[in-house]
Amino acid sequence: MTDRIAPRSGVAFTLPKDKILCVTDPEGGQVGDLLAFRAADPREAISNGRTFDYEETIRLTTGNRLWSNRSNALLEIVEDSCGVHDFLLTPCSEATFRHFYADKPVHRGCFGNLADALEPYGIAADAIPVAFNLFMNVPVGSDGKIRVLPPTTKAGDFIRLRALDDLIVGLTACSAYDSCGGSFKPIDYRIE
Amino acid sequence: MTDRIAPRSGVAFTLPKDKILCVTDPEGGQVGDLLAFRAADPREAISNGRTFDYEETIRLTTGNRLWSNRSNALLEIVEDSCGVHDFLLTPCSEATFRHFYADKPVHRGCFGNLADALEPYGIAADAIPVAFNLFMNVPVGSDGKIRVLPPTTKAGDFIRLRALDDLIVGLTACSAYDSCGGSFKPIDYRIE
Repeated sequence: MTDRIAPRSGVAFTLPKDKILCVTDPEGGQVGDLLAFRAADPREAISNGRTFDYEETIRLTTGNRLWSNRSNALLEIVEDSCGVHDFLLTPCSEATFRHFYADKPVHRGCFGNLADALEPYGIAADAIPVAFNLFMNVPVGSDGKIRVLPPTTKAGDFIRLRALDDLIVGLTACSAYDSCGGSFKPIDYRIE
Repeated sequence: MTDRIAPRSGVAFTLPKDKILCVTDPEGGQVGDLLAFRAADPREAISNGRTFDYEETIRLTTGNRLWSNRSNALLEIVEDSCGVHDFLLTPCSEATFRHFYADKPVHRGCFGNLADALEPYGIAADAIPVAFNLFMNVPVGSDGKIRVLPPTTKAGDFIRLRALDDLIVGLTACSAYDSCGGSFKPIDYRIE
């Protein structure tokens, strides 16, 4: 069964070991921020730094694993029709809205949506790490400069990730203007 | 007064607001992992993701600030004779030694040194984020691939950072083979 995350919202759910999470961009051009915590002890969470260490790349796709702050692999990307994701930037938040979109209404953003969805699992806002930002298109120039461009996804593009442990997952349909080219769209997911 | 951090060790200390921390590579070719937490509430710490967001670059040098998980700037780089630092990779640890240097003795690494030094301040190992790795030379290829090369520092190269709040700082002389080209050296620091 496929569930839909409404535009500018987020969810949290448990993902048992060996199950596969399939996340689809149903209309194309949308980003979903993904977090994963070890269910048995949510102080263990995905870490961009540990992942960059062990995978030796900042461009993660099929075959790459997402590692935790305790050096355990929590998720493995088993299929990826897009190939463009970001693990550098933090979820958009009230503070990033005020900073980047001073002329627009402030939104709690993916950060607020994730904090709200994860609170019943005992995960505090301060414990939210950098998310793995599915379909987010963040090129890094040879001078290190970062740009946030619209996703390259077409309608129906997807990524499938296998759980390597029992996990608590947070997932959003992104709320920021830049990450989705100014169009807020849903994100679909299902557990296989 | 300049203090010396012995090779493969680490320290923690308080850094009052508006003071400047000057970190020097006395022999050249060495890395120091830097952490900073807000003294009034150490759940607030430097965040590579928030820093990349607000500074819009992964290459941080004079004029750039290090931002926290709560979107506050904690440190500003006010002078930098080297210009090559890393904010992608996590401190070396027992697990990274086993992974990258399977034929060499396991060391607790910068992670273990930082955890030990920060424990008296009530900061748990799980709360250690990606460090700002002073003088660490981590080029990122156009394909996203990461390499760890010897630092470009000459003896006496330094970086000066101004505290923008009262901070708890952790700092090491790095323990990993790759980051310092296989030579373990001290790191010097002073508070101005």
